[in-house]
Amino acid sequence: MDYRPRPEDVRFLLEAVLDAPARLRALAPFAEVDDALHAQVLEQAARFVGSAVAPLNRVGDAQGCRFASGEVRTPPGFREAYRAFVDGGWPALSAAPEDGGQGLPAVLEAVLYEWLAAANHGLTMAPGLLHGAYACLRHHGSEELKARYLPKIASGEWLATMCLTEAHAGSDLGQVRTRAEPRSDGSLRVSGGKIFISGGEHDLTPNIVHLVLCRLPDAPAGPRGLSLALVPKWLPGGERNAVHCERIEEKMGLHGSPTCAMRFEDATGWLVGEAGRGLAAMFVMMNSARLHVALQGIGLLDAAWQKAEAYAGERRQMRAPGPVPASRGGESADLIAEHPALRRILDTQRAWIDGARAIAYRSALMLDIAEHDADPKARERAQRWCAIVTPVLKAACTQQAFHGASDCLQVFGGHGYVREWGIEQTVRDARVTMIYEGTNEIQAIDLLVRKVLPDHGAAMSAVLLELRDTLDASREAEADVQRRLAQLRYLGTTVAMAAQADPVLPHEVADDYLRATMLVLLAWAWARIEAAAPLDAGRARVAAAFRRWVLPEFEMRLAMVKRSCEPVALTHAAVARSPSG
Amino acid sequence: MDYRPRPEDVRFLLEAVLDAPARLRALAPFAEVDDALHAQVLEQAARFVGSAVAPLNRVGDAQGCRFASGEVRTPPGFREAYRAFVDGGWPALSAAPEDGGQGLPAVLEAVLYEWLAAANHGLTMAPGLLHGAYACLRHHGSEELKARYLPKIASGEWLATMCLTEAHAGSDLGQVRTRAEPRSDGSLRVSGGKIFISGGEHDLTPNIVHLVLCRLPDAPAGPRGLSLALVPKWLPGGERNAVHCERIEEKMGLHGSPTCAMRFEDATGWLVGEAGRGLAAMFVMMNSARLHVALQGIGLLDAAWQKAEAYAGERRQMRAPGPVPASRGGESADLIAEHPALRRILDTQRAWIDGARAIAYRSALMLDIAEHDADPKARERAQRWCAIVTPVLKAACTQQAFHGASDCLQVFGGHGYVREWGIEQTVRDARVTMIYEGTNEIQAIDLLVRKVLPDHGAAMSAVLLELRDTLDASREAEADVQRRLAQLRYLGTTVAMAAQADPVLPHEVADDYLRATMLVLLAWAWARIEAAAPLDAGRARVAAAFRRWVLPEFEMRLAMVKRSCEPVALTHAAVARSPSG
Repeated sequence: MDYRPRPEDVRFLLEAVLDAPARLRALAPFAEVDDALHAQVLEQAARFVGSAVAPLNRVGDAQGCRFASGEVRTPPGFREAYRAFVDGGWPALSAAPEDGGQGLPAVLEAVLYEWLAAANHGLTMAPGLLHGAYACLRHHGSEELKARYLPKIASGEWLATMCLTEAHAGSDLGQVRTRAEPRSDGSLRVSGGKIFISGGEHDLTPNIVHLVLCRLPDAPAGPRGLSLALVPKWLPGGERNAVHCERIEEKMGLHGSPTCAMRFEDATGWLVGEAGRGLAAMFVMMNSARLHVALQGIGLLDAAWQKAEAYAGERRQMRAPGPVPASRGGESADLIAEHPALRRILDTQRAWIDGARAIAYRSALMLDIAEHDADPKARERAQRWCAIVTPVLKAACTQQAFHGASDCLQVFGGHGYVREWGIEQTVRDARVTMIYEGTNEIQAIDLLVRKVLPDHGAAMSAVLLELRDTLDASREAEADVQRRLAQLRYLGTTVAMAAQADPVLPHEVADDYLRATMLVLLAWAWARIEAAAPLDAGRARVAAAFRRWVLPEFEMRLAMVKRSCEPVALTHAAVARSPSG
Repeated sequence: MDYRPRPEDVRFLLEAVLDAPARLRALAPFAEVDDALHAQVLEQAARFVGSAVAPLNRVGDAQGCRFASGEVRTPPGFREAYRAFVDGGWPALSAAPEDGGQGLPAVLEAVLYEWLAAANHGLTMAPGLLHGAYACLRHHGSEELKARYLPKIASGEWLATMCLTEAHAGSDLGQVRTRAEPRSDGSLRVSGGKIFISGGEHDLTPNIVHLVLCRLPDAPAGPRGLSLALVPKWLPGGERNAVHCERIEEKMGLHGSPTCAMRFEDATGWLVGEAGRGLAAMFVMMNSARLHVALQGIGLLDAAWQKAEAYAGERRQMRAPGPVPASRGGESADLIAEHPALRRILDTQRAWIDGARAIAYRSALMLDIAEHDADPKARERAQRWCAIVTPVLKAACTQQAFHGASDCLQVFGGHGYVREWGIEQTVRDARVTMIYEGTNEIQAIDLLVRKVLPDHGAAMSAVLLELRDTLDASREAEADVQRRLAQLRYLGTTVAMAAQADPVLPHEVADDYLRATMLVLLAWAWARIEAAAPLDAGRARVAAAFRRWVLPEFEMRLAMVKRSCEPVALTHAAVARSPSG
């Protein structure tokens, strides 16, 4: 079955739980975005995604992209669907009006991209990269480059890529070797090889704009020697530029998106931003890009859940234990949705989806506030939230996308392992989200080692205290979350102290620390969901599933980190590590 | 890279940890199996698997099986490899000498099949089904059937299938509809459709022997109405029987094994065992078959670990934190094996592999004891161990195979998601082991609801007390395991009491109960490994990884089950469940 976006679920979170419409109206550019417009955009997005994008998911996987003589053919229907996406103005949803965009909030775009990924992850990769290129060029491009490329990118008429990775330089971009030599006319001559370039070549748009991480002559070694070049497939004069796709990768999944190995052979490009500041120029959109990957994870998990929930409501196997379910009728076997072990799987994933959505939408809202709030303190607070919460969301939501989709596959039994129902595709597609845009291990280290430890947990504490203050301690569920928030704050201090004796330790426990953070964020989200409205029976069951099957991992992670931080553990760990091998 | 079996790892567990050779020599049929023969069989098996089977893993996935006009062509090289397997006498390793077998212990066969699955899961499926058919026919077949089929099956000259599943009858075999009508000559006329039949049709052997679950005329509805028929592809007179392969499934993985939809059209067959006792006849080999799936899981995890460990020892990215590693030399980046987050992943999987092997090999030893010990009490104890531990191993080892292989994929970063290194194949192949031979949810219910609760935990307690008595409480690590064993015993009582108030509860917490059981078994195994020998640096690091990253889940599972059993939780759960929907 095809994915069906459910705007009512999303609106409940945005409106009743997060108070998003009012918070957005307080920002100058969105003062006119009333509830009706909000609702209308969501309804239209749901209709577009459900009708034009979702039906192509299967063919995208089965036929995939084809490579021949340097050209890439996307799966049948992808060109038309992308054209409709551009014609509908969807790429420009949150782009600035002066660039031809619609100037809508980032939070609406977040929902759109979550649905797109849920409906068709492969096709979504194409426009998914536009926004990073747009932000990067808008902040760092020269006026000339902006005039030439920004409107085409904002409208989606031309697609863009991020050319970072090289065969020997993956997580370690400081090792990038692609060279760029200045020509007398101010352009650059770019040469080198890049791999894993999503959408490096395709037939969706007449031109493709590559943003290429490269090294100018005499640049120092390492990340400070990196610059960023814009290299179009077709030059302004109409000649073909010397950038070529050498092959596309055979992958576990995501067959609808061509993953290209690219070769630049004295290709013509132009510097974006300052020389030696290539990474900084790229990282301007890092929080937004990582949030989008988290949303892909949430979307894919929702797609898996929808499939499994539908199957469990149709397939009958064996008698369910306990009271006779109303759905039994005269049947000799019960719906598998009535079997407690499978009900648990389904409700657990639902608890993740709704909780993670609340956090992710709040983060998108913070992106809007960080950019548009009149109060610099509010912008700073929002920025702090994004810095801390984004790596948590990216790692935890993508991990759950893969593992939770696999749990949903389990609901199908043997029927889940064959292609027929499409659930195994979701599992394969989801796996990549744990890797790209910074592996989940790097997210965890980013959180603990780069964001929490350097200021001894001050920024983290500030975020947690802010959450604490949104809770009402007179309700037991909310007081419980406050206790957990305090435990997490204290944990940061514990790790900071232990790290002084053993600098390796934070790298070992970063993953547990990140998980504990996500679980407390989810606990906050569920407390808010429960406080927002009297829950119907289904949501009450999901809330119970959250407390019973998801939240207990918090204590485990806490205990794991704490035990590693005990002085005797530090000694043992050091002994066990040495000699390594 | 191809999988390479390491007999030295296995021998350490069998000899130093489990004392297997001495225990086997105490059984009459193996009195002559000395250490040298043991070692020789393992060396030869390792050589055969490494040279003839492992190199075909990639082609098995990439080319897969091809179906055309009712026939199935296996991937290039599979016929020859299977022929070499038969010629080497490997199918008959543990078959009885009177059937042409070599009469070696089940524990050696267990190791062989673990390695086979690690090297090439797809190819392993073909002979993997022989042993069940052999045991089933040996215990339940008429003398005539045995004379005609048993030697051919024991030698592997003819392959066999288990035809259980139908489109509407998966986990719920009681719904099987395939009909069998007696003919006057004592044969049966078998008609119906079966799906998910591994090796239902292929080109590996000249004949295929199907064991078909079916229903005689006037048989009662449900599982008691099921009988078992032997239906060969070619009849004794040389005519082709009316059994046909209609298609093979497109699957997530395991492409080297044809998963067939079979149609029986008044095919000729013969009853195996008594009418109406078809399930009992099939289940004679259930413990052995489930143990083999657990071993597939262990093997696949080891294959994933070998790949990731090798890659981590070659690939350099970024500086590792902490003291300068010896491997740095003049390189600007360190081996990823030196990065703590990845070291943790690798050591955690290694801890699972070695611990799970110890339990699985002990279970295989118990199969030998259950069959051959002169003392009926010893046979009964061994049988009890198998009944309790087999579902635990099946579920936990296959779960870890998939999730742990995915963690190993993570070590490769983006290179893990593309086909090149073969790790994504291992993840895809491993996924099916969580489903077949009884889904992991069914294993958990089998353990808790069918094995533990009916006698109020008595059998479970007996198994745990037996383990307790092998430990030396004067060593702190072993005393710790004894405490956990006691906690698990007490947990059984807690669940049994709570189940009286809420019969649904055990179905909800069965998975946690199973996980807690596996973790305490692993803790026992690691305590024994540590007591068996002074550990080298590598194994000491893995032992530490077990305590730091694996074992803490035990407390979490314990807490989850306990909290669900509290009276207030019981009330809440019942409220949350009703009304369902």
